[in-house]
Order: sequence, then structure tokens, then C-alpha cells
Amino acid sequence: MLITRRIDFSASHTCWNPALSEAENLALYGDDARPHGHGHNYVLEVSLAGEPDPVTGMIVDLKDVKRVLEEEVMVPMDHRHLNHEVPPFHSVVPTAENLAVEIWRRLAPRFEGSAARLRNVRLYETEDLYVDYSGE
Amino acid sequence: MLITRRIDFSASHTCWNPALSEAENLALYGDDARPHGHGHNYVLEVSLAGEPDPVTGMIVDLKDVKRVLEEEVMVPMDHRHLNHEVPPFHSVVPTAENLAVEIWRRLAPRFEGSAARLRNVRLYETEDLYVDYSGE
Amino acid sequence: MLITRRIDFSASHTCWNPALSEAENLALYGDDARPHGHGHNYVLEVSLAGEPDPVTGMIVDLKDVKRVLEEEVMVPMDHRHLNHEVPPFHSVVPTAENLAVEIWRRLAPRFEGSAARLRNVRLYETEDLYVDYSGE
Amino acid sequence: MLITRRIDFSASHTCWNPALSEAENLALYGDDARPHGHGHNYVLEVSLAGEPDPVTGMIVDLKDVKRVLEEEVMVPMDHRHLNHEVPPFHSVVPTAENLAVEIWRRLAPRFEGSAARLRNVRLYETEDLYVDYSGE
Amino acid sequence: MLITRRIDFSASHTCWNPALSEAENLALYGDDARPHGHGHNYVLEVSLAGEPDPVTGMIVDLKDVKRVLEEEVMVPMDHRHLNHEVPPFHSVVPTAENLAVEIWRRLAPRFEGSAARLRNVRLYETEDLYVDYSGE
Amino acid sequence: MLITRRIDFSASHTCWNPALSEAENLALYGDDARPHGHGHNYVLEVSLAGEPDPVTGMIVDLKDVKRVLEEEVMVPMDHRHLNHEVPPFHSVVPTAENLAVEIWRRLAPRFEGSAARLRNVRLYETEDLYVDYSGE
Repeated sequence: MLITRRIDFSASHTCWNPALSEAENLALYGDDARPHGHGHNYVLEVSLAGEPDPVTGMIVDLKDVKRVLEEEVMVPMDHRHLNHEVPPFHSVVPTAENLAVEIWRRLAPRFEGSAARLRNVRLYETEDLYVDYSGE
Repeated sequence: MLITRRIDFSASHTCWNPALSEAENLALYGDDARPHGHGHNYVLEVSLAGEPDPVTGMIVDLKDVKRVLEEEVMVPMDHRHLNHEVPPFHSVVPTAENLAVEIWRRLAPRFEGSAARLRNVRLYETEDLYVDYSGE
Repeated sequence: MLITRRIDFSASHTCWNPALSEAENLALYGDDARPHGHGHNYVLEVSLAGEPDPVTGMIVDLKDVKRVLEEEVMVPMDHRHLNHEVPPFHSVVPTAENLAVEIWRRLAPRFEGSAARLRNVRLYETEDLYVDYSGE
Repeated sequence: MLITRRIDFSASHTCWNPALSEAENLALYGDDARPHGHGHNYVLEVSLAGEPDPVTGMIVDLKDVKRVLEEEVMVPMDHRHLNHEVPPFHSVVPTAENLAVEIWRRLAPRFEGSAARLRNVRLYETEDLYVDYSGE
Repeated sequence: MLITRRIDFSASHTCWNPALSEAENLALYGDDARPHGHGHNYVLEVSLAGEPDPVTGMIVDLKDVKRVLEEEVMVPMDHRHLNHEVPPFHSVVPTAENLAVEIWRRLAPRFEGSAARLRNVRLYETEDLYVDYSGE
Repeated sequence: MLITRRIDFSASHTCWNPALSEAENLALYGDDARPHGHGHNYVLEVSLAGEPDPVTGMIVDLKDVKRVLEEEVMVPMDHRHLNHEVPPFHSVVPTAENLAVEIWRRLAPRFEGSAARLRNVRLYETEDLYVDYSGE
């Protein structure tokens, strides 16, 4: 059984790889490569797998999930410029793909050894574009 | 191939386990434990697996699905207080997890022996919280 | 110029007027009259009118709006049964219309004398039904 | 890892199988069988599986995905009557199921041999009805 | 005070004025002019103005609104081709504008002399395009 | 009669008034004041007032509206950092209020002397916050 919590945060990013030339960056990323960056209201869906506890009827205490999401995503990423303020995006291009991997990397250890394991991270960059990452 | 039908219903619930003390209930469920209950516009997505029939082009006749959902979910649960009016929630805490399991338990036998088997039940308690149950 | 803040809360209600007979209540309210109540994820949009301040560029400090909505709507109404826990709904039928009027009655004085006046309250009972009230 | 692009297109269809009698068609498809057809704003979600490139951080260049969707879906299907203008729906009933299969059949070869393989096609006929097809 | 009910229906249309040449129609309507038509999931929001009745707490009995919308919109327009099946669209171009006016023309007399008057008709052709008509 | 077109664009901004001290900026804007900026998927709804032309059935040619929105909003603002790249936001704080006024200021003259006049600009900064400006 899966339980999924949806949150959203607002951040800026620019897609630019310093290892590439300006022409290569523009060819790859187009408008996403503008140096000052642009922003999104990112929507994050975090899915945890487990069994409902026979006493509580809950897979996981959602207050715990909220605290983890606050510490690992909201405080470090909300109202931030990813390239300037959120490691490792000083040196890693903050595409939706890489951002989802980073969010997984931060969240997964927080649920190790608990009844609910992290199963999937879905990240919407816009209403029309999203990525799913499940740790593999 | 999967076909998914989405319906919604309005119901009340309170999260309270009579086997626990008041303090334990409040610690577990917080505001959800208030005795008079509170409510949600639940959204239910029912996914059926099968192959499109070569003549009709349909996995399942949606009129049949509608009738099953009407009988098993809408009539017994819509505009109801789950704890007071919908078994087994007199004695089982109607968390989203337990409600999804109960809906699966009611729907799955209705599709046994037919071309389309019940594959997944997704239940949104709010826009930001949902559970998936697939019978295991 | 208008600024609108959207919040949501989960509550139960039952539509039943004790001054009417059971038959009259059932004829009027149908399923809404079931005695234990049912619930909704209400969505509230509060619109304030004013001019952007030339220094701050803001009509109103949204931190103030948030505090007012917390005190007047979220604390008293969220995760509540309106008929049992929220005056005047012990004696007034908590239709969407009456609930919007009550929310207006609570909010309007909080913005009197400030730069932003309450202009409209929109209350969604479901995605498909909403009311607008502007104090008249 | 999956990346999903969502697009929408407006088309007409009628559900009518010429191999069946009028009575059989009406029994099967109901209002969907009206001869002049009716229409939908179809929403299509196309999911591709792959690994983010270590240099670009992208599973696939979205400009390539856009071009493929334009050529295979938007140009031939948007603002069209499926039965009259889009093969094979002269002779195949354009149910949501058959339309999803046809979209898969058109898209899958376009991603063969590339880093991102077509993983799933989700087609919403309305907000409340969708099908998923993954090629099997 | 306003109460708004939202419904949706699926219909086809083509934008073509027989009084104009083919070149003029194509210049005006573009893809919308294709002769077989295309379709939409139209969303209709009907707003009625009135005062909540002091006894019932309701501006209008929603069962009455539902019946009127069924008779005037759903039965004649849902799953129809507007140009072929819905007068006056044999001779009037069924743009969103003209369709909203026609819906107003059908609904307004049904609420004359009642406590709730028709105030506004909002018609979404797609998520990104809608018209409002209030009888003037 | 009104016709409304909805578009969206992604941009960054930071709320910081150089005429104020750092402490004043932080008190006023909170997290919005972080210097590198953060971003949003802004949604813009532009409403035009007019009468449907008796021949075309249209208030305005939507191809013209699209071109104006492209030139005045999408090209100068999409995928931009408002403070750095979009005048007058070098010196004016790009709150939602000020951004809506600026969009009005750019669009209104483009519809002067035409059959459809600009009536309202609605700008969503997030799903839960929007402003309306109608030129006064």
C-alpha cells in the first residue's frame, strides 16, 4: 500500500553547464539557459510504501512525514535560487531530473529502518512536465 | 491496459480508536480525533485491467462499472458519517488507508470472473493526500 | 485592485431545520439532511480591495491576512462539525449560503479602518458548487 | 527514471461499429453512438524511461519530444473528427482504449534506438475517465 | 448573493459561416473551420442571484436548478454535434460567444418570476478560453 | 460580454526595495526578500469586453490576442528574472500587484480603438494567491 503527500515550493533555477560552451548551453537548454534564471512553483509528490498498522490504521504518522519534508525540502529549497543556494546545484545542472534525484537522496535515509519506505518521488516543474524517480 | 474511472463523494469521519486512551488518540490523530467528526470530498479512482474487446473496442462496459460504484460506494458512503453509518467503521478507524482497503474489499469480488479485473484503488482524502491499494 | 487569498478547511455539516418536520427537512435537503452529517473540503477565497502602497508594492501585508484567517476561520472551523461546534450553526442551517455570510460577518470587522477592505467571500462546497457574498 | 510530457488536443468521435446492428450499437455505446459525433478536449500524458545524461542532466531533449508529438499527434488529430480524418478510425471504433493504442503505435517507433524509450501512454477522455497503455 | 453551479458536457462544432467564401472562413477560423468538426469538453458555470431564504438558508433549491440544466443544456447539447443537432447552429456559427448567448436565452426565462434570477453564464471551451455573458 | 484567455509563464523575482533598510525589507517581505530570487509559474487571465460580431460570432480574433500576449508578455517576461531583465522592475518591487499593473499598462494600448477593450487582468502568483486589476 502507498501513501502520497503533495507539497509545493517556489524556486529559481538556470540550466547552464559550465563545462560546456555558451553555444552548447544555448543549443541544449534554450530559454532555460538565461543567466539570471527563472522560476517555478514546483509540486512534489512523495510516496511511501507500507502496511496500515492494525491499531492506528496508519502506514505512517503524517506529522513525521511533514517534519521530514520541512527539514529536507521546504527549509533548504523554498524561496531559493537552486544554483546559488542549494548544493549540489552550484556544479550540477538543476534540471527536473537532477532535482528529483537530489530530493530522493535527501529523503530516503530519513525513512530507512521505519515501517514506511520511500517508494517514489514525483516532481512537477510545470503542470505539463513531471519526472518520477524511485531510486534506481 | 488499464481503464480508470474517477468519482467523488462527501462523507464525515473521526479518527478515534476506542481501544486507546484519550491522550493516545489525541497524540496519534490530532485534530482528526475531534469527537463530532469532520468531513471531506473524497475522490476515488478505480482502475481496471484488461484487453480492449476486438469488436467493441472497450475493456469493460462503463455502464456496468457505474452501477457497481453506485451500489458499493455511492449509496452506502456518500453523504454519510463513516463511523456511524458504514460498517466496519464502527470498530475500525476510518483512516484513508482503511477506507481504501474497505472499498477494495467491496469492489474486487464484483469484477471476479469478468474480463476486467480490479487493479488499483486510489483514494484522495484531500488534494494533497492520497493512498493507493491494490489488494496486497 | 483586488487581492485574493485561497485557503481550504475540512468540516462536517448536516442540513436540518428543527423548526420544520422531518418530512419537510427531507423534501428540502434530501441526502444533506442525514442526521450524523457528512463533510466537505471547503475552499474559501477571500478578496480584499485596495491600492498597492507606493513603497511596498503591496495592497496588504499577507502575513496579517493569514493571521486573521487563522483566527476567524481555521481555528474555529477546520476539522469541526459545524452544527455542533461552530455558532450560530446550532440554530442556523449551515448551508453554503449561510456559512459564507457567517465568514463575512467574522472577517469584515477585522479589515475595517485598514487600507484593504473586505470585498468578496467565495466559498466552494464542492468543485461544482460555490457561493459569493459581498456583504449585501 | 521517467519523464512525462502532457499535451491536449480537441477532436470529435462517434462510437459506432458498422459490423453491428443499430440496436447493438445503441446498447453498447449509448449517447456515444450518435452519428454526427461529439467531442472532447483529450489530454495525453506520454512517459519516457531513461537515465539523466551526466553532462546535460536530461533524460531526453524535450524539443525532440515536442517535435514527435507535433508530427504524430497534434497535426494528424487536433481539431479533427477521428472517424472521418484519422486512420484507422474509419474502420476501428475510436474508443479511448483504441485511441491510446493507436497513439502508442505511432510514438513507440520514434523512440526506438534512442536513450529514452516510450514507457506509457495515458489518455484522458474527460477529467473522470482515462486509460493507460504500455504496449502489452 | 450569488450561487454558481458547474456542469460539463461534450459536444462537437465546426466554425464555418456559409455566407462567407472558403478562403474567408479559413482566414477567420483556421483549424476550427475543418468541415467534419472537432470537439470539446465544455464546462458551464451558471450563476444565480438572490437572498438566502430565512427558513431554508438556500437562495434556490438546487434540485430545481439541476432539472432546468438537464432540460435546457444536457439533453439537447451533450454528446451532440452543435451545427447538425442544436438550433440555431445550423445557421449561426457556434463560437463560444454564440453558444453562451444561446444558453442564456434558454435559461433566463426559466428563472423569471422566481426568487433567484439568472445573473451570469460562464462557458469554458477549453481550460484556457472562456466567455462570460450576463444578458446585455 | 467578456472573453478571457489564460496563459502561463515562468519567471523569477525578489521582493526588495533599495530605498528601505535590510531589516525593513526582511520584515516586509520575509522569504520573498532573499537576494538571489525565487520563481513562480505565473498564470495570467486577460479579459476583453465587446460584442460578438454578427457575421463572425467572435468578439475578437484570438490570433490577434495571441500575438499581443506573445509580444507584450511572453517574449519580455517568460523565462526571465523580473528584477534584472524586465523594466521597470529594476527600481519597482515586482510584487504580484505591481506586475499586474505593468501587464495592464502594456496591454491596454494595444486594444485601444479596437472592438474589444481590455477589461481585467488577473494574475496568479500561486494557486492560492492572485490579484485583479482593471485599470483604476
